[in-house]
Amino acid sequence: MALMKETLEGITPVVRTIEEKVQQHLDSLTKPRGSLGRLEEIAKQYCLITGTDRPHMGKKHIFTFAGDHGVAEEGVSAFPKEVTLQMVKNMVSGGAAVCVLARHVGAALSIVDVGVDGDLSGMEGLIHKKVRSGTANMTRGPAMSPEEAERAIEVGIELAHKAKKEGATLLGTGEMGIGNTTPSSALFSVLLDLPVEDVTGRGTGVDDETYRRKIDVIKRAISVNSPFDGALDALAKVGGLEIAAIAGLVLGGAREKVAVVVDGFISTAGALVAMNMCEHVRDYLFFSHRSEEKGHRVFFEKLGVKPILDLNMRLGEGTGAALAMDVVEASLKIYNEMATFHSAGVSEGVD
Amino acid sequence: MALMKETLEGITPVVRTIEEKVQQHLDSLTKPRGSLGRLEEIAKQYCLITGTDRPHMGKKHIFTFAGDHGVAEEGVSAFPKEVTLQMVKNMVSGGAAVCVLARHVGAALSIVDVGVDGDLSGMEGLIHKKVRSGTANMTRGPAMSPEEAERAIEVGIELAHKAKKEGATLLGTGEMGIGNTTPSSALFSVLLDLPVEDVTGRGTGVDDETYRRKIDVIKRAISVNSPFDGALDALAKVGGLEIAAIAGLVLGGAREKVAVVVDGFISTAGALVAMNMCEHVRDYLFFSHRSEEKGHRVFFEKLGVKPILDLNMRLGEGTGAALAMDVVEASLKIYNEMATFHSAGVSEGVD
Repeated sequence: MALMKETLEGITPVVRTIEEKVQQHLDSLTKPRGSLGRLEEIAKQYCLITGTDRPHMGKKHIFTFAGDHGVAEEGVSAFPKEVTLQMVKNMVSGGAAVCVLARHVGAALSIVDVGVDGDLSGMEGLIHKKVRSGTANMTRGPAMSPEEAERAIEVGIELAHKAKKEGATLLGTGEMGIGNTTPSSALFSVLLDLPVEDVTGRGTGVDDETYRRKIDVIKRAISVNSPFDGALDALAKVGGLEIAAIAGLVLGGAREKVAVVVDGFISTAGALVAMNMCEHVRDYLFFSHRSEEKGHRVFFEKLGVKPILDLNMRLGEGTGAALAMDVVEASLKIYNEMATFHSAGVSEGVD
Repeated sequence: MALMKETLEGITPVVRTIEEKVQQHLDSLTKPRGSLGRLEEIAKQYCLITGTDRPHMGKKHIFTFAGDHGVAEEGVSAFPKEVTLQMVKNMVSGGAAVCVLARHVGAALSIVDVGVDGDLSGMEGLIHKKVRSGTANMTRGPAMSPEEAERAIEVGIELAHKAKKEGATLLGTGEMGIGNTTPSSALFSVLLDLPVEDVTGRGTGVDDETYRRKIDVIKRAISVNSPFDGALDALAKVGGLEIAAIAGLVLGGAREKVAVVVDGFISTAGALVAMNMCEHVRDYLFFSHRSEEKGHRVFFEKLGVKPILDLNMRLGEGTGAALAMDVVEASLKIYNEMATFHSAGVSEGVD
């Protein structure tokens, strides 16, 4: 239990003292000031995170955490529960969307069993960190114990540390878990104090009847598990193991001053938990894309954040993170590789 | 002159007969149907363009056309005119933003002098296709003759053909030309029949006084050169040499059934000319990003098109095209490399 506490206590704000120096460098590059928009903002944020005006882009590493959900037995997904395990196999074999996109952007990809309901112990190429075999059905009580939630968080923290040691300078989150938009919506509702209807979408694509049932299920889960004593308590009661591990990866990244690219709706639920556990976390995050999932839009509006991409995606796995990590890397190259007005002998404009 | 006419006559609609087969393949991949959003749409469009349900991604090639503008003497830009030539040197040396981003995405980059006002004849690494040394000041008469506009268009067509022969399957547009948002806005106003104010922005970042002058300059140019007899006439009278070459690259791409990724506001003006010259052109285009330049938003609203990226960029050069070409390539890899439900042994969901 010490690791989570140590990590939370060790997270400090980003280094704002270098902001002016970073901005001066951006303004010295051969382009009208600010004309690369988000790319310049991203490069600047990356500098502040790493605490240097001479930033280095090392390895990119995506962690896709898999876990099952007891609440799936309430019939909240268009896919049967065994698909979590089947998709883990597909991911380890390289055939899932996140595998294709991670290869495309040159990111390492690790698949982590943090809570799949099924025996994967013999599977090579999978990181074995199972905390329990799926959560309990949260409509009848807590999804897991506080200790289990902490252990799952620590899985994420440990992997962030390990990745940094191995040269990663940019982490990406991802997940696989049939039914996991349901606990995610529950967490958004509880932690942002918003009506369930406002933060609940159709996940992988459920019909009207299932959608109504999903909202009812979330309301019952929140009612059964109320009151909530902070983010960790909410995570344990109405969250999920892969969501906890994502929160951990985010906390570990912030602790190590490594930027974390947050994937879609479910990953954002994990990031939201981490942000609620430590206020400084937010500055270490890049939000990769705006998912089609309804609650994601609400989250960004509430936080006043604009994600990097908006490609109508709603798949998860880390697919959005992969694509956005490529934009972050492009931003760093702009910062590091462009000529300056002085070096290129280009006349500056009038402000 | 024969090449332009031949090209226009040779452009045919994309192959819609394979659409169902392409969609079936997309739906067989291990993901909820449609959950990769724009990536699936892009992959499908690429298939229709190339006429096959087994698409191949070959080389990516960006062409950045440079030209000067007589209208710059009216004081419509924040930068002096000599910056066009200086930036061409910077591009050839690899220090400009488009060079960095083209390298990042693995695209070839060619810089083409189609109308720089200055002697670049000795410069290595530059494609020499100068039609004339900058346009005339369009507030006093036509920017160029119809013959010059055609020649500049044919430069683009020829380069599209050459690139295809050398293995390019995806073309990108780009430009450099101090003052070139001014003729671009003029073309948007004339060809979309919109008030000058609605399609005129601040370019590289001019102040209020210059902005008001810019609008006045465009209105005078349109007034002096009215009436307009179609897109080619408008291009010659209130366009630019690099805009004409971009129109040509677009036409050449469509003729060769090679997809073209259109960069920002100025490139879109070139694409708009091409779209007005041949109605089938639109299906061969990917619009890379929504520029911060005011008129770009208006264009997308009018056409009901959503560009791939929205990163608050307003630099041009081909920077947006480079980043978006990477997303197009990612889409193709999704189509070609993902496992199917059948091959991976994953259970399908209920619709």
